Amino acid sequence: MAQVAAIIGGGVIGGGWAARFLLMGWEVRVFDPDPEAERKIGEVLDNARRSLPGLSDVMLPKEGRLVFCQTISQAVEGSIWIQESIPERLDLKHKVYQKIQEHCDAGAVIGSSTSGFKPSELQGCATRPEQIMVTHPFNPVYLLPLIALVPSDKNPPELIDKAKETLTGIGMYPLHVRAEIDAHIADRFLEAVWREALWLIKDGIATTEEIDDAIRYGFGLRWAQMGLFETYRIAGGEAGMRHFIEQFGPCLSWPWTKLMDVSELTDELIDQIADQSDTQSGMHTIRELERIRDNNLVTILRGLKAQDYGAGAVLNAQDARQPVADIDISQPIQTVARAVPLDWTDYNGHMNEARYLQAFGDATDRFMEIVGCDADYIASGGSYFTAETHICHLDEVRAGARIRVETQCLLGEGKKMHLFHRMWEGDRLLATGEHMLIHVSLETRKASVPAEKIAVRLGKIAAAHGGLGWPEGAGRAIAGAR
Amino acid sequence: MAQVAAIIGGGVIGGGWAARFLLMGWEVRVFDPDPEAERKIGEVLDNARRSLPGLSDVMLPKEGRLVFCQTISQAVEGSIWIQESIPERLDLKHKVYQKIQEHCDAGAVIGSSTSGFKPSELQGCATRPEQIMVTHPFNPVYLLPLIALVPSDKNPPELIDKAKETLTGIGMYPLHVRAEIDAHIADRFLEAVWREALWLIKDGIATTEEIDDAIRYGFGLRWAQMGLFETYRIAGGEAGMRHFIEQFGPCLSWPWTKLMDVSELTDELIDQIADQSDTQSGMHTIRELERIRDNNLVTILRGLKAQDYGAGAVLNAQDARQPVADIDISQPIQTVARAVPLDWTDYNGHMNEARYLQAFGDATDRFMEIVGCDADYIASGGSYFTAETHICHLDEVRAGARIRVETQCLLGEGKKMHLFHRMWEGDRLLATGEHMLIHVSLETRKASVPAEKIAVRLGKIAAAHGGLGWPEGAGRAIAGAR
Repeated sequence: MAQVAAIIGGGVIGGGWAARFLLMGWEVRVFDPDPEAERKIGEVLDNARRSLPGLSDVMLPKEGRLVFCQTISQAVEGSIWIQESIPERLDLKHKVYQKIQEHCDAGAVIGSSTSGFKPSELQGCATRPEQIMVTHPFNPVYLLPLIALVPSDKNPPELIDKAKETLTGIGMYPLHVRAEIDAHIADRFLEAVWREALWLIKDGIATTEEIDDAIRYGFGLRWAQMGLFETYRIAGGEAGMRHFIEQFGPCLSWPWTKLMDVSELTDELIDQIADQSDTQSGMHTIRELERIRDNNLVTILRGLKAQDYGAGAVLNAQDARQPVADIDISQPIQTVARAVPLDWTDYNGHMNEARYLQAFGDATDRFMEIVGCDADYIASGGSYFTAETHICHLDEVRAGARIRVETQCLLGEGKKMHLFHRMWEGDRLLATGEHMLIHVSLETRKASVPAEKIAVRLGKIAAAHGGLGWPEGAGRAIAGAR
Repeated sequence: MAQVAAIIGGGVIGGGWAARFLLMGWEVRVFDPDPEAERKIGEVLDNARRSLPGLSDVMLPKEGRLVFCQTISQAVEGSIWIQESIPERLDLKHKVYQKIQEHCDAGAVIGSSTSGFKPSELQGCATRPEQIMVTHPFNPVYLLPLIALVPSDKNPPELIDKAKETLTGIGMYPLHVRAEIDAHIADRFLEAVWREALWLIKDGIATTEEIDDAIRYGFGLRWAQMGLFETYRIAGGEAGMRHFIEQFGPCLSWPWTKLMDVSELTDELIDQIADQSDTQSGMHTIRELERIRDNNLVTILRGLKAQDYGAGAVLNAQDARQPVADIDISQPIQTVARAVPLDWTDYNGHMNEARYLQAFGDATDRFMEIVGCDADYIASGGSYFTAETHICHLDEVRAGARIRVETQCLLGEGKKMHLFHRMWEGDRLLATGEHMLIHVSLETRKASVPAEKIAVRLGKIAAAHGGLGWPEGAGRAIAGAR
């Protein structure tokens, strides 16, 4: 049975949490008195459905059930995770926790999305303060993995561990903040930058657009993959971190930042910022901007995934935790099951031709793994290289579609491995890929026979698949004008 | 004849500048009294050569000539751009400018890489202050496009325009900072974050690694593509920027940042940071970290390029400025000429099989453009879809290799377009790709005849290519076990 999460307070943040849980197969119960809540969460969910499943290179679980509740009690009863994302007013939060704790399981985690309050402030005079902790996400919650997990000394270590496990399970990265401080690390940096930015605008030094460009064409690119310190370690060069600080340190006493004081948010300054922002981004609706942002984030995240670094390594670890289907060699073997990611599509929203081969290449890699040609074997000096490929494009497919590849082995003998992949969306055949692979020695880069254990396993599958019949389209040539 | 740039002061920053100019075909003259300068710049250049050329989807000019000079006068004579990247000491900079101006052209730009000094401070009592301005880059200079271009009121508008043009020409994005302030926008943000980070470490709240994770798993990903304001505009939702500020504004009066004061850089604090950084990143040498960083940055930048957004849009504009080769239809037409980018290779450093099809797909797109099936035509409702593909992989190719694709048209008649691509590195044939494309109506998604002007142009090329003979490997089928 699906695990149950309660989302108290919808909106952009609550909706993002709901999407994470739902798309990882949880049942989600939402309480939000706003009559617009269902529409608002629906819009966040639409964004999440088009971007999150394809981030994964394996198939996510079936989407869970979404229930809108009339009362807090209906939402929290039976929930093992309760996420509060209501406005930043402490008295309101305290009232809501009281109501939650009247009905919820004493072992459930009550996480708060607060960006400012400390856990001990949230716990206040709660019946069971030990249940309540800060689990602060970053927008868009369905794509960014970071969670500032801030417990107080009232939270038992077992519950903290359980919270980490749940968050990791839905693809997030819980950063355990070991001390309670206002704004839990990341928001302190955001605050510092925001204040500085206000001064720059107020003093007429830069517009919103110039400030954004100063970030996204420079250090923003660095910070998407390494943070402050790893970046500066490199800047220190061979002499290292100590050298960097010694160079950079004296600057700290220079009056570069204007943060000794806070710029007052006058109506005039607000107008200035709103007007500049309209000039910069007003040609797009918020919905368009969200989708541009999500396309960019998916592209960046999938790129980092291919490099197995930073947030990309978090995603790979998440994929590795998903269950692997059993293999029945009497039938074509399922070697790929995934959603088509946003970055595989062209401007039409259709999967680009090269990505068909990428999916077939992934299918081949998986098949190689199944016959024993895995990372260890490749490290030992043998592998299969593709010599020849024939693809028939039969139908189009859009971003978000759940596709699978089934692989039939036509020959597995000596140095040769001849595979035939069929790509499906449901019962719609999208493409076929026929591939001749040759076993090579990675040292000589020349054809060689595979290790005995691979030859045996491959021969067994080839023999089993021999009974499946020759596939339509295999051995085909392009009918030319010759 | 190649344009000439003088690099005064090598090291990581000067080396990065040298790489940008060289790889865009400039002659570069370096002056640096450090006996290690040649080695140090060589290392930066190695990094740049493996990462920069492949960022482009067209072929960059032939690499320029690199000359190490014994004197400043040798370096600057005949140079139209002089880039100063010496240590941050004003007296030293003044002395160097004096020497430069004794020998350089009065119309040359003298740009300073300074991160802290204002242009009027740099100009001081120079002979020709109007030549000197701040052109502050970000590390790695060969990959990040941002330049803070800060003139004073002494710089004539024509020279500022010329500076922008030169910087744009070598693929950078000059951000014209309209007022002289310490640390020119971006560095003020970096300073603010750095100071805050020092407090977090000193107070034992977070380690260097935790701080980096708080950045790269959250807002760092956002800032690689949109900056502060465009991101917050979205967070404001349908109610917009004004709503966001009204929500967020009150937080500004909270004591979230500790920036009212500066943490003293005691030996103890330096030790703490250096030790934490060793724990976090000490398993990698600086050279390894540089390459991890560059792989990540290339991946992010190329991803943003595919989305045509942010720094990716800057790269596309740079590609569009490169000259296009003349077309001779009596021979196979060159449809791709590029370096293999880092993100096209697998863990072995070899181009992944799917990227062969990506290059062939790009070749097909270019060929379509040549016959008139361009963006305007596609927008009018017609296009060619690939129905069938046959690839022969003949040889491996590594990241950085300069490849080209030559396209022969085997048939261009009615709804059909039959192409044969050959991919070369020098005279080494790497792969062939045979493709049958069908013209479709984008409305019905069904086969249809192309517009007359396309039929004519295509027919002409097909007829001209008819005399080239049937290519070896065309019409081939995979020899199966049937």
